[in-house]
Amino acid sequence: MRIEMPKKSKKLTDIAEIGEFGLIELLTKEFISKNDSTQLSVGDDAAVIDFNKKNTLISTDMLVEGVHFDLSYFPLKHLGYKAITSSISDICAMNGICSQVTVSVAISNRFKIESLKDLYSGIKVACENYNVDLVGGDTTSSNKGLIISVTALGVPSESGFVKRSGAKTNDLIVVSGTLGGAYLGLQVLEREKQVFLVNPSNKPDLTAYKNIIQKQLRPEARNDIIEFFQESKIKPTSMIDISDGLSSEIIHLCKSSNKGCKIYEDKIPISHDSLQACEEFNLEPTTIALSGGEDYQLLFTVAQENLDQIQNNLNLSVIGHITSSKEMILLEKSGRNIMIESLGWKSF
Amino acid sequence: MRIEMPKKSKKLTDIAEIGEFGLIELLTKEFISKNDSTQLSVGDDAAVIDFNKKNTLISTDMLVEGVHFDLSYFPLKHLGYKAITSSISDICAMNGICSQVTVSVAISNRFKIESLKDLYSGIKVACENYNVDLVGGDTTSSNKGLIISVTALGVPSESGFVKRSGAKTNDLIVVSGTLGGAYLGLQVLEREKQVFLVNPSNKPDLTAYKNIIQKQLRPEARNDIIEFFQESKIKPTSMIDISDGLSSEIIHLCKSSNKGCKIYEDKIPISHDSLQACEEFNLEPTTIALSGGEDYQLLFTVAQENLDQIQNNLNLSVIGHITSSKEMILLEKSGRNIMIESLGWKSF
Repeated sequence: MRIEMPKKSKKLTDIAEIGEFGLIELLTKEFISKNDSTQLSVGDDAAVIDFNKKNTLISTDMLVEGVHFDLSYFPLKHLGYKAITSSISDICAMNGICSQVTVSVAISNRFKIESLKDLYSGIKVACENYNVDLVGGDTTSSNKGLIISVTALGVPSESGFVKRSGAKTNDLIVVSGTLGGAYLGLQVLEREKQVFLVNPSNKPDLTAYKNIIQKQLRPEARNDIIEFFQESKIKPTSMIDISDGLSSEIIHLCKSSNKGCKIYEDKIPISHDSLQACEEFNLEPTTIALSGGEDYQLLFTVAQENLDQIQNNLNLSVIGHITSSKEMILLEKSGRNIMIESLGWKSF
Repeated sequence: MRIEMPKKSKKLTDIAEIGEFGLIELLTKEFISKNDSTQLSVGDDAAVIDFNKKNTLISTDMLVEGVHFDLSYFPLKHLGYKAITSSISDICAMNGICSQVTVSVAISNRFKIESLKDLYSGIKVACENYNVDLVGGDTTSSNKGLIISVTALGVPSESGFVKRSGAKTNDLIVVSGTLGGAYLGLQVLEREKQVFLVNPSNKPDLTAYKNIIQKQLRPEARNDIIEFFQESKIKPTSMIDISDGLSSEIIHLCKSSNKGCKIYEDKIPISHDSLQACEEFNLEPTTIALSGGEDYQLLFTVAQENLDQIQNNLNLSVIGHITSSKEMILLEKSGRNIMIESLGWKSF
């Protein structure tokens, strides 16, 4: 895998040449709504959605250049994809399936229409992969950089929506997929950026890091887990998506539920690729899983009676259980108990 | 009326001191949901709304400092108010009433918590005035300036939603309120900014411009007109809100409906204050009404049979009618016909 440098097109087009309405038309004309619930899409003052008696789930996120992404190694197409999947992930975390998004972008005049088309091509692939309709948005200029705001709409599964606050004592704590990969992918990309700045002719071979780079640049939302719940008739008692790192999200679940937890370090799922990268970067794998962020995996609690079904799903790992005390404890491999809150994390 | 300069507080608080979650808690704790449809508000991965069989209307807008507003004369409280009312206006334009909003803000580190509290106090007043619940959002840092993204949700009136595309030949073209005031208010504020830059000790008396400044700084959404439609059992055939100026919106309605129109210059409603300001600034009132923007009035078409009811509402002015040709014509006071499209407007 090689990082592709942006290609120099022969002629780039200033947005002023086609105007705001021309731009919206250009960017959205290839988006075709596929959900029956989408009654009216882009092109009027508001979109119209028919959720037919079901509750509406709504979540919104803002991504800012230089804060959430660095375009020197984040291709715009991937950024569009990630903006959508990270928003879909919030709907998953409510035990829901996302069906519509709106996307607003503010862009400085250094961006040409071709760049926006790249961004929207990634948005389109994500919408297609997740059967989501783009139903509205706003396009404006900014004084500096690129800002993307995505609002996701969806409906809960038949069993109903799941909050952060329903965890019960002795519930199993479960996580989907593996953790830490997205953070480690970012470390590789940051390192290559520094190399590039020193020696722009260097062409890095990143094949060995393909999986973790993909976790960073092209994360997926776990619709499959929501569908598994539905098929297995499992309703989690509480759920959250892991955007800031496992420890931050565990704290949210426990505090919202007014409970504590015991997490077993040796149960935290970390991929082989991530372990290798940790060794190379001299990082502690558990710390990365706990604080890395951007994995967009689901963290949830279920009743003990669901243990067999959970264990039969290879995408899920039971990492601990809920306790009646308010203490949130990590049992280290060494046998030592430590308080999760003392690990510290900060996202602002 | 005097423009208040920002007060220097004794101690301003860096956002890093309380962190993102502390900030969200601080900004949203005084918002109390009042709509039965709001099942779950701020504090989880998504909000949950029960629209109970009704369609969901959704619209989104992004406001960027230096592009959409200038904080040297735009108080943050007013900005918060305007961000909400301009979004509610989009829901009105669908013949709907807004019931929920999400608000995302990106802010550079020049903003302290006190500034954000001002912004949210204006958001809160607007939510209270319009019976709208703040149900979610995102707070993040930016490299430069303030960016606000608002998504508005609502439901259509009993008669159903109204698109831009339903205008029929001979339908009356109607506008609410008066036009041009917001643009003229902006001219006054821009002029005073220039005076202030030359002579900071100058204290302008802006009493004479109070009404037009208010149109700029504190625009209202026309929920009252939607309620009037409902009470009068009127359903417009097409509708749009006037954010970019009358000519731009007339063109949208006609093109979406595949029709033309005839507008009478002498019927375009312009307030006495706006006429005075036009004289002072040596501007042509009709041009300002056609191209000024930000008035957030409603432009709609109705069947001729509704004429009496429309004329009995002092907030509404019949300004012309829809024609079967595709020509969009303004009949000037002089008796000359001119093509509206040739007037030109540009919003990017």
